[in-house]
Amino acid sequence: MLKLYHTVASHFVRKCTMTIKELGLEDRVEIITTKWPHSWGTETVPFLPDFVDASPIARIPALVTEDGLRLCDSSTICEYLNDELGNFALCPQSGRERWQILSVVSVATSGIMETQVMRRAENLRKREDSPNPQEFSAGFVRKMKDRQTRCYKVLNELVPSFTREVDLGQLAMGSACGMSDFRYPEDDWRAIAPDVARWYDKFRRRPSMRETEPGETPTDPDKTTWPRNG
Amino acid sequence: MLKLYHTVASHFVRKCTMTIKELGLEDRVEIITTKWPHSWGTETVPFLPDFVDASPIARIPALVTEDGLRLCDSSTICEYLNDELGNFALCPQSGRERWQILSVVSVATSGIMETQVMRRAENLRKREDSPNPQEFSAGFVRKMKDRQTRCYKVLNELVPSFTREVDLGQLAMGSACGMSDFRYPEDDWRAIAPDVARWYDKFRRRPSMRETEPGETPTDPDKTTWPRNG
Repeated sequence: MLKLYHTVASHFVRKCTMTIKELGLEDRVEIITTKWPHSWGTETVPFLPDFVDASPIARIPALVTEDGLRLCDSSTICEYLNDELGNFALCPQSGRERWQILSVVSVATSGIMETQVMRRAENLRKREDSPNPQEFSAGFVRKMKDRQTRCYKVLNELVPSFTREVDLGQLAMGSACGMSDFRYPEDDWRAIAPDVARWYDKFRRRPSMRETEPGETPTDPDKTTWPRNG
Repeated sequence: MLKLYHTVASHFVRKCTMTIKELGLEDRVEIITTKWPHSWGTETVPFLPDFVDASPIARIPALVTEDGLRLCDSSTICEYLNDELGNFALCPQSGRERWQILSVVSVATSGIMETQVMRRAENLRKREDSPNPQEFSAGFVRKMKDRQTRCYKVLNELVPSFTREVDLGQLAMGSACGMSDFRYPEDDWRAIAPDVARWYDKFRRRPSMRETEPGETPTDPDKTTWPRNG
């Protein structure tokens, strides 16, 4: 069995669990839930040894392959699942279409999804029990929102060129849009990117989307949608 | 011609320029220098239209391919150069070795290199002309250093398994080690990772390393090691 370290609050993890479902690999992957205190934004939190052994970055997702390789970023994990276990069903092995799809992955992941998690970490600096609320930077949050806006506009230009029903690029986009609605409902991304909004309205009905809705990191592992042992 | 947006201060760019040199692609890529004010850590800085058109994330590196695709993160750019233009000379197209190499890329890039740039952005909050020095978080810098330490330890375990003289993983590692020495000479990473130190002492002598030494982002584009038009 492969092992995937997970929390329902992470859209980077969601990209991977959606990829697993779209490729029909649920029986091959053990899902291991993790819990995170709100101090993660500015502190090294205590890690269980198996987790930090799977990912020295100590971020989720982390995938441990059957032959012991440790992959610790969502794009590499999704490429591995697609290329090695998924017969390239969500992205071809070569050619222009591969790079078109990976270009969408790059904008949605390094653009929007990273922006969302860095904004979340910044916002946690001013949480109620924060010891240092003066460390919060409104400028940094504006910078992240500006970046997100630019990236949604570019994805809006790209949507009409999509030829497949689902691929690694669209899975990254679905995770990004889902996180916007979950964590930042005040962002009017649909006005910035109406073609993405129309695309999302259909894409979100896929079982892989409906079965991986984001939620707050649970304090009780029994409440996750995935059991601890697959 | 491909276009690569560049600054000498970025180790993410260095990973790409080293890949270009190792693959002998210098004549195929136009290098376009960019300049950055120190306010980039917490502000959206003004961008030239061609740059933000190449990368909606507005980060460097950004690569525009000959057929107009925009790739805007260093790992995707290096994979594109290797796969499409480099005949897989720095990473095979499939099999365990591919994922071993991409696993090293992932730890060096998402672990150490991202850590270094986020620590730089945090340190810029307390620069001399900062309007908001109270926004600096010493805890966040400690978190980044802890992450870097864990990642150097894991790379140290991996060095003995390297079988090639150079590959995409080692290029990412070289960029990471070079940035540690350039920006954070007080970090004693060689004590944490003595096998990486021994590997680096040899690897840094490669022409691709010597010709891409990091420097501060120039205020005068004539002082860069790359001319504006290739």
